[in-house]
Amino acid sequence: MSSSKPKFNDLGLETKSHADGYRALNKDGSFNVSKQNNSFFEGVNIYHSLVSMRWLHFFGLIILIYFCINLIFASLYMAVGMEHLTGISGSNTLDKFIEAFFFSAQTITTLGYGRVAPVGTLANIIAATESMLGLLTFALATGLMYGRFSKPTATIKYSTHAVMAPYKDINGFMFRVVNPTNNQLVEVEVNVTLSLKNENAQTRNFHLLEVERPKVIFFPLMWTVVHPVNKESPIFGFSETELIEKDAEFIVMIKAFDESFSQTVYSRSSYKAREIKWGEKFVYLTEQKANGLTVDIRRINETEQKDLNVF
Amino acid sequence: MSSSKPKFNDLGLETKSHADGYRALNKDGSFNVSKQNNSFFEGVNIYHSLVSMRWLHFFGLIILIYFCINLIFASLYMAVGMEHLTGISGSNTLDKFIEAFFFSAQTITTLGYGRVAPVGTLANIIAATESMLGLLTFALATGLMYGRFSKPTATIKYSTHAVMAPYKDINGFMFRVVNPTNNQLVEVEVNVTLSLKNENAQTRNFHLLEVERPKVIFFPLMWTVVHPVNKESPIFGFSETELIEKDAEFIVMIKAFDESFSQTVYSRSSYKAREIKWGEKFVYLTEQKANGLTVDIRRINETEQKDLNVF
Amino acid sequence: MSSSKPKFNDLGLETKSHADGYRALNKDGSFNVSKQNNSFFEGVNIYHSLVSMRWLHFFGLIILIYFCINLIFASLYMAVGMEHLTGISGSNTLDKFIEAFFFSAQTITTLGYGRVAPVGTLANIIAATESMLGLLTFALATGLMYGRFSKPTATIKYSTHAVMAPYKDINGFMFRVVNPTNNQLVEVEVNVTLSLKNENAQTRNFHLLEVERPKVIFFPLMWTVVHPVNKESPIFGFSETELIEKDAEFIVMIKAFDESFSQTVYSRSSYKAREIKWGEKFVYLTEQKANGLTVDIRRINETEQKDLNVF
Amino acid sequence: MSSSKPKFNDLGLETKSHADGYRALNKDGSFNVSKQNNSFFEGVNIYHSLVSMRWLHFFGLIILIYFCINLIFASLYMAVGMEHLTGISGSNTLDKFIEAFFFSAQTITTLGYGRVAPVGTLANIIAATESMLGLLTFALATGLMYGRFSKPTATIKYSTHAVMAPYKDINGFMFRVVNPTNNQLVEVEVNVTLSLKNENAQTRNFHLLEVERPKVIFFPLMWTVVHPVNKESPIFGFSETELIEKDAEFIVMIKAFDESFSQTVYSRSSYKAREIKWGEKFVYLTEQKANGLTVDIRRINETEQKDLNVF
Repeated sequence: MSSSKPKFNDLGLETKSHADGYRALNKDGSFNVSKQNNSFFEGVNIYHSLVSMRWLHFFGLIILIYFCINLIFASLYMAVGMEHLTGISGSNTLDKFIEAFFFSAQTITTLGYGRVAPVGTLANIIAATESMLGLLTFALATGLMYGRFSKPTATIKYSTHAVMAPYKDINGFMFRVVNPTNNQLVEVEVNVTLSLKNENAQTRNFHLLEVERPKVIFFPLMWTVVHPVNKESPIFGFSETELIEKDAEFIVMIKAFDESFSQTVYSRSSYKAREIKWGEKFVYLTEQKANGLTVDIRRINETEQKDLNVF
Repeated sequence: MSSSKPKFNDLGLETKSHADGYRALNKDGSFNVSKQNNSFFEGVNIYHSLVSMRWLHFFGLIILIYFCINLIFASLYMAVGMEHLTGISGSNTLDKFIEAFFFSAQTITTLGYGRVAPVGTLANIIAATESMLGLLTFALATGLMYGRFSKPTATIKYSTHAVMAPYKDINGFMFRVVNPTNNQLVEVEVNVTLSLKNENAQTRNFHLLEVERPKVIFFPLMWTVVHPVNKESPIFGFSETELIEKDAEFIVMIKAFDESFSQTVYSRSSYKAREIKWGEKFVYLTEQKANGLTVDIRRINETEQKDLNVF
Repeated sequence: MSSSKPKFNDLGLETKSHADGYRALNKDGSFNVSKQNNSFFEGVNIYHSLVSMRWLHFFGLIILIYFCINLIFASLYMAVGMEHLTGISGSNTLDKFIEAFFFSAQTITTLGYGRVAPVGTLANIIAATESMLGLLTFALATGLMYGRFSKPTATIKYSTHAVMAPYKDINGFMFRVVNPTNNQLVEVEVNVTLSLKNENAQTRNFHLLEVERPKVIFFPLMWTVVHPVNKESPIFGFSETELIEKDAEFIVMIKAFDESFSQTVYSRSSYKAREIKWGEKFVYLTEQKANGLTVDIRRINETEQKDLNVF
Repeated sequence: MSSSKPKFNDLGLETKSHADGYRALNKDGSFNVSKQNNSFFEGVNIYHSLVSMRWLHFFGLIILIYFCINLIFASLYMAVGMEHLTGISGSNTLDKFIEAFFFSAQTITTLGYGRVAPVGTLANIIAATESMLGLLTFALATGLMYGRFSKPTATIKYSTHAVMAPYKDINGFMFRVVNPTNNQLVEVEVNVTLSLKNENAQTRNFHLLEVERPKVIFFPLMWTVVHPVNKESPIFGFSETELIEKDAEFIVMIKAFDESFSQTVYSRSSYKAREIKWGEKFVYLTEQKANGLTVDIRRINETEQKDLNVF
């Protein structure tokens, strides 16, 4: 929208400095923040919650709602009188209620065996309403189910540690990412931002780090993202201790287009200063196979010692 | 598409000046315009109307249509003769019509208890048509229902007032936005345009305002958008009275990518000159909690007095 | 993808010159081309055809398929023997076939009254298969129906003629567009390309025309797109006759984001030299109403005489 | 995201040189790589697999699952006792099991004839569960079916060979693409990258090749993509033999917006050095027809001899 380019990277994160070791971004890409005193209805997007809850909870919720709706309608059928349902054989109230419950289940799913069927206006109104309601609510349930199933997720896997390794005749901050799934990601962009405490330790600065390749067109194998620590780098000349003292956090955001889902996906992670191995480099993993290349992605975290360049 | 950059911001709004106090954009982001004499069928996108109407109206409409379709089909079954339906017990016409009505409801929802069932070609043709029609129309209803439910909405909340507050050694026009929901918005861009009456009061000029941070990558907390009123600003040196006389309107558009819905969303609002508090600043709300930061978004409108810089 | 900017506008259209008066783009935005001898299965995307055919044809097709499938299954039930269906009352073959036909309709829609029901393995296999098939095929039909219904269409309406009108102290090529629907279009970009015959009349050149405002953020009312015919314009100094001789075609493409559908939409049209009114300007249509502006979009084509600037 | 432009084209492919004749990208656009030892559940995105498997396999899978679920539920009905189902006529266990199997099929599809119907709590619980489960699983199956059907695929067809042909007063590397379907593709971008072995034959370099027109707005006919081999080209002065020795691979990626699906689509292919015809040019295929242009896309591969420019 705006044509002016920001001179430094804006993350929308706090610049006031907080307790040492504070982590802005969790390893799984979620933010280490909460919103206070927001009313429930305003703060919760029901769709978002239903789409992102765990499958077990989702199914539990569906079964619970299915059960409750049938309880309600069974009560309604009881209320108008069980004589308005044909084929009821139960003699006591509980038996009748159970039969009404299952009749309700047959109605809401539009199963309609007809062994039990409504007779008379009132029971028919309830049944007609229930079947319509059933179609609408099951549409939500099944829509959500498919929505969850077909939701694109940038399944990018990050090496658990970053490294500070020799790079050309300087050194480089590096981490490794892989797309473990058979989804094809294309036009993959990476954005690495460094959060550092200021001299006064009161505020934080955010620096966009130059990376060797900010964008790759294809992402079939593994990708080692490299920030060359040259004179332009905000951590040029820093030692491991300094980086820890400045409470450095390397915030990574990866954006890609997922061909399987025809959608843009985002992935986030971060490395704290203590999660950097100095003087290690990632082991080269690509091998030539009979017809093509292969990479052993289980070994994504494998590093070997390598002396850093000194200058 | 075109590579040429507009020198000023183009809003697609009128440049002729209208009655004082005219508001181009309502607080809720809708436009203060109407289109005249357009034929109904051309002017109304039915899908758009059905997706954006209120839930109550939507359900009312569905129930109404369900009722009407059943009325029509009940009449059809009556027309071909109720002797073509088995299990009809009513003796007078009204009772028979009611039974036909409920049989229609059982057919259109594909419930089909079978206590009442069609016999003979004519009744069967109607029933076969109705059940097919039912599947198609309920598909629209349930599709719309899920479409409404899963429609992304940029739920960004704006501070009710903007402020003119000291900013570095000058002053700044500021307003505050927050994402109150648990949806994650990323790559958030803001565009602030100022609409000002010309000297001759006949036309309006639109100025794209520079903002301190036109784009943030993450938007987990609150965001105070700042337009620094420096020498380049079209309102440099303006007093509160001048701004009101020029009938200023600050038109805000926010664009973001909603991760939950995997879609781009837009949000709009505007501030008129009278909705700016001069010499106030927004209270800083972020607090350090046990594990992470927290912000009390109920206090989004809270300001405190702060003398403006004079120069 | 590529960072290099094309110096002229590339349309992907032919540069060889064809018969005079050849129109590359029809008024409705479709291309005046065909592809020869392409095999049917390669050339036709079935989804695209089903989504873009007329509603009448679409419904006709659905009814036809529904009818045929039922014919096929009725034949299958006949083949295995009608004694495997309960409740059949017909005495001759035709009556039995009709009953089998309606039983099939009750099965494929999962209506299942049960007055007629399968008994025995063979009939049950057919019915079980049919009901499963019914769910799958109706899913396609209803999905397509909703897909058609919710398909975004850039419903932009173009003035039937363009004009050559005075603009500042030069002249301008202008046309008018309006969004007649209640959908909100934002970030609207326009691209106007001029196709002109070369001196040698053998090939065509395509020129990207500068327009006064290549992009507007909002599009609530009407938009007059203006190409100022200044010294940089490829038609600077051209007379009406020259433009016709050069067989000029102004090809318009508009790209926008449709908020209702959360999708990008495209619209195309073109103006041939003979569709330009020289010395006319569009009538200003926006009026101030009680609360807001209003525009009479029926009058989009209204022009009035206005002498062109001479220089 | 990042504003820094890569100086050369980054493909995310290996730069270490592999066996001669290694092909990074297969003709169909898939990558010639595999990932080793990845756990099945991490490596396989089920949605992706189900959406991209062949139709025959997809239907086979659905039928298999439908069969198995009915087997399971038939066993459950047997387990609780067939006396809890009305209308069972089978006398031996196998017959009863078959009847239970078909009752299950009638329940899971919500067909519910009712000739056979559950009586008693246990059988009713199973049936109520099955019908709910049926709605949910068929929602997945039908959703996937429609998802497969409506999935956009860039159906771009490439000429089987590229050519090295005279172009202006130099030569050019050219290949031809066509959109054989009736889908409309707009804003089509092409990216051609050359993979060449280094002097030392140990590593590979990737060069982004300048193409005459990196982007076309429309793509109605055929498009000949041209890389002019001028002094800036990395293959300037190369002979056919040299190109083969360097094991050259021209990797093509095309990005477009598919109007029918309202989505961005990608297409990939590659040409190895041996797939280039030197001194041939593509035959011009566009012809003027009664009303419009036509192109015979069957002849996409047709070339004719043409002497290369020597200099």
